[in-house]
Amino acid sequence: MTGKNYIGYSKSNKGTVTYNTFNPLENKNNETLFYEATSKEIADAVNLASKAFEKYSKISGQAKAEFLNAIADEILALDQKLLDVYCSETGLPEGRAIGERGRTIGQLRAFANLVADGSWVEATIDLAQPNRTPMPKSDIRKMMIPIGPVVVFGASNFPLAYSTAGGDTAAALASGCPVIVKSHPMHAGTGELVASAIVKAAKSCDMPEGVFSNLNSSGIEVGQELVQHSKVKAVGFTGSIRGGRALLDLAAKRKEPIPVFAEMGSINPVVILPEAIEHRGTELAETYASSITLGTGQFCTNPGLILTIENKSLDGFVQHLASSTVKKAPGCMLHPKILKAFNTNRVNAVAQKGIEVKGSYKEQIQPNYAQQIITEVSGSSFIENEVLHEEVFGPYSMVVRCKDKTELEEIIAKLEGQLTGTIIAEKEEVDNYGKVISALQNRVGRLIYNGVPTGVEVCQSMVHGGPYPASTDSRFTAVGVESIKRWVRPFSFQDWPNSLLPDELKNENPLAISRVVDGISNSNPV
Amino acid sequence: MTGKNYIGYSKSNKGTVTYNTFNPLENKNNETLFYEATSKEIADAVNLASKAFEKYSKISGQAKAEFLNAIADEILALDQKLLDVYCSETGLPEGRAIGERGRTIGQLRAFANLVADGSWVEATIDLAQPNRTPMPKSDIRKMMIPIGPVVVFGASNFPLAYSTAGGDTAAALASGCPVIVKSHPMHAGTGELVASAIVKAAKSCDMPEGVFSNLNSSGIEVGQELVQHSKVKAVGFTGSIRGGRALLDLAAKRKEPIPVFAEMGSINPVVILPEAIEHRGTELAETYASSITLGTGQFCTNPGLILTIENKSLDGFVQHLASSTVKKAPGCMLHPKILKAFNTNRVNAVAQKGIEVKGSYKEQIQPNYAQQIITEVSGSSFIENEVLHEEVFGPYSMVVRCKDKTELEEIIAKLEGQLTGTIIAEKEEVDNYGKVISALQNRVGRLIYNGVPTGVEVCQSMVHGGPYPASTDSRFTAVGVESIKRWVRPFSFQDWPNSLLPDELKNENPLAISRVVDGISNSNPV
Repeated sequence: MTGKNYIGYSKSNKGTVTYNTFNPLENKNNETLFYEATSKEIADAVNLASKAFEKYSKISGQAKAEFLNAIADEILALDQKLLDVYCSETGLPEGRAIGERGRTIGQLRAFANLVADGSWVEATIDLAQPNRTPMPKSDIRKMMIPIGPVVVFGASNFPLAYSTAGGDTAAALASGCPVIVKSHPMHAGTGELVASAIVKAAKSCDMPEGVFSNLNSSGIEVGQELVQHSKVKAVGFTGSIRGGRALLDLAAKRKEPIPVFAEMGSINPVVILPEAIEHRGTELAETYASSITLGTGQFCTNPGLILTIENKSLDGFVQHLASSTVKKAPGCMLHPKILKAFNTNRVNAVAQKGIEVKGSYKEQIQPNYAQQIITEVSGSSFIENEVLHEEVFGPYSMVVRCKDKTELEEIIAKLEGQLTGTIIAEKEEVDNYGKVISALQNRVGRLIYNGVPTGVEVCQSMVHGGPYPASTDSRFTAVGVESIKRWVRPFSFQDWPNSLLPDELKNENPLAISRVVDGISNSNPV
Repeated sequence: MTGKNYIGYSKSNKGTVTYNTFNPLENKNNETLFYEATSKEIADAVNLASKAFEKYSKISGQAKAEFLNAIADEILALDQKLLDVYCSETGLPEGRAIGERGRTIGQLRAFANLVADGSWVEATIDLAQPNRTPMPKSDIRKMMIPIGPVVVFGASNFPLAYSTAGGDTAAALASGCPVIVKSHPMHAGTGELVASAIVKAAKSCDMPEGVFSNLNSSGIEVGQELVQHSKVKAVGFTGSIRGGRALLDLAAKRKEPIPVFAEMGSINPVVILPEAIEHRGTELAETYASSITLGTGQFCTNPGLILTIENKSLDGFVQHLASSTVKKAPGCMLHPKILKAFNTNRVNAVAQKGIEVKGSYKEQIQPNYAQQIITEVSGSSFIENEVLHEEVFGPYSMVVRCKDKTELEEIIAKLEGQLTGTIIAEKEEVDNYGKVISALQNRVGRLIYNGVPTGVEVCQSMVHGGPYPASTDSRFTAVGVESIKRWVRPFSFQDWPNSLLPDELKNENPLAISRVVDGISNSNPV
């Protein structure tokens, strides 16, 4: 590890602003000094990316697949060193590092398969009808093409799967877009190691230089400069509402506004219906205590809001949820800054009118560990006070006691957009809550039945996104191969000579991809 | 015609601001007095739409298809009255009115077919794997769902096909989104007649009231209020860059930003290569004179920029283009305001350094008619002066003489985003211009070979959109059934009970739609 930026294939440290990463378990700085990228380095990276786009946007799906698989191989080749640096920069256990690496590798290979197959470009051909009256019809052929250089912001809570070579990067590289990563300062070392793997893969696969760069930053300036650069054409971000919104606003003010896909905050409402609480409240309490404290509550799908309706078993359930949660071993948070925000937000939430603490961990804890907490509030207090709608990122959840179904509906209708919504119900009672479910569907990107929102399966049917502020554009998902659609645009060729068409649209269908020809889906030549 | 707004099924004229439409051929106001919608009427329309969304977002594709077809039938039933009002408000000939009505009807029926078939929702099912290790896999099922109430702004130059029941409205209604139309003041009568057809169809098909409203406006205020209303979830617009950008900026500043799909200005660069000019310059001059003056130049795909390279036949071509264009009978423009803008922009363009007028219609013309004009400028002057990159909406085109291929490449790389780009070439020479074609592809949404950009086929492979400022989001097309994607978002159900799933995702596949099940496309039950 050198602490330097990757500007294309070159390591560079022209700047004077430096910083260290922090080991929250050992409560001390890690050794490597990282060099924040200068304006010149930022411009160099973007110009290289823009130049690389000319070639990279047109290379074959097969070549992109080889590149993505090579990145996965090179990440695995980093072996124990990567795991050690990951753990030293996050306080997360090695098991989590291995799991997240597996997810990262899996995503890269899933995108490799997608582009090797090639059908994802949605090739659509309408053949000419020269004798049509009153006007002849042209031959028109459409496919998805990449949008241009993409800036990816690393996420604090997923140093591998949603950072340097994470979902946004894999999707963008798969689409044919060069990527400039704005490395997350909390895990700059993990970022540099992964960046070295990508650069090694790019070189060995003979990719154009600039297809990838990795820029260090200690604050917000590097990201701001990147988003405002005229040659950057799209932005991917995972993080806070404040951060995502700031980037969205910057992008909207550009001479040429660009799409920002930001996956931001969510409190992931869970509706637990009365009969479910009555029949299996104990089991539910245990399950939710685990989900709330999983990864020290540092998942964007953490269940921060549990909506219930008054019933005779509710007191017992809340009590059990609180005691089960408090019994969990406290966890280390990613960084002192994140712990500080958790404590501030928690104190602020508890200070609100009508809030009651049902259980909180009170024993002595090690530095940078979080004390989990469960609170409770009435439906009417929740409706009145928007502060209670805000995410408390960490091991926190709030039970809302609605006086009846109508109040529950009212609360759901007033909720901000969310990544997920969950319904916990007995089979017999769920039919009586059609309006609740319908209202919840309007506010979320994914509905879960009798499960927990944590654990986001990476598959084609997954939607990770939702109405604002869960994400900035609900028309796309951030997880799964469908997330490639964020970085592409449809493009038509009219009466274009067959020899000059991309392979995907040639008469012969040399890639044997699935295409829609005159409205019929097939993989035949035309 | 009453001049009133449609707030759901009710006619309403609570306001005091009134206006007339204008007959440019007769150079006088039309009789009907239109009542601009008040803030109360705007709020009523949006609240009705939001309420209607609860039901309309969930009705069957079959029911939506019947509604869309009924709209088409009711528009046809307006018969000669619609054609008369259309012509009286636009100065366009009846043949154009009939053609545009055919296009409008065709669009409505194409969307009806799309949603009756149902496969457009991209149903994707990943079945559960309860025994997967280390973690069981949930059953996850995804489909596209509508985003919420959509505001559609009528376009000045397409009173039928891109206004009240035009492409945006048809796509939004097909997706399951209620529509509030901000009627274009220049053809408010045409708008009211079409609105009456939609309302009649909605009633006869038993649609929820509020699925459609039509609001009159004389200025920008009604549109501004609509875009800022918290219950509006997306915006469709066709018009000027200034207008579209203003709406985009308003939407970006909302507490909950919403997508704005605006199809805006374009000068549609046409590259005519030397050998093509040499071999068929005369024919090309005639063809382009027709394209430039088609519909008095009032198409968004009008070829406003002709890029050439110095060669011995170029003078003759430009001369011929100019004389052929001037020989065309001048046409009436849609409205005195549009003529005024044309004349202002034309005078401004001609006043720029290095511009030479090659031909302009100089005879006496009737009021509200436009005098077509062809200008010429050197490549270097064009590069230096961004004013020359701006659209002159009307029968105008400018020939740019590049000194060589390099200068041509430079010009294309500096162009703003465009709807279309055209290459006119002989078969032998096109291979030498790979970089030119590649650069042009980066700036446009559709590439045409040896044709004209005017004439936008409505089909699945069509892309009408492009990099900003051709449109505000190049990831979507505004024409063709694929434009439905602007108004929908992906949605996942996890472990959801089969009986509660939408029909599209039920095990039985009762709609027999095409779905992707565990990665394989088929229309079988699971």
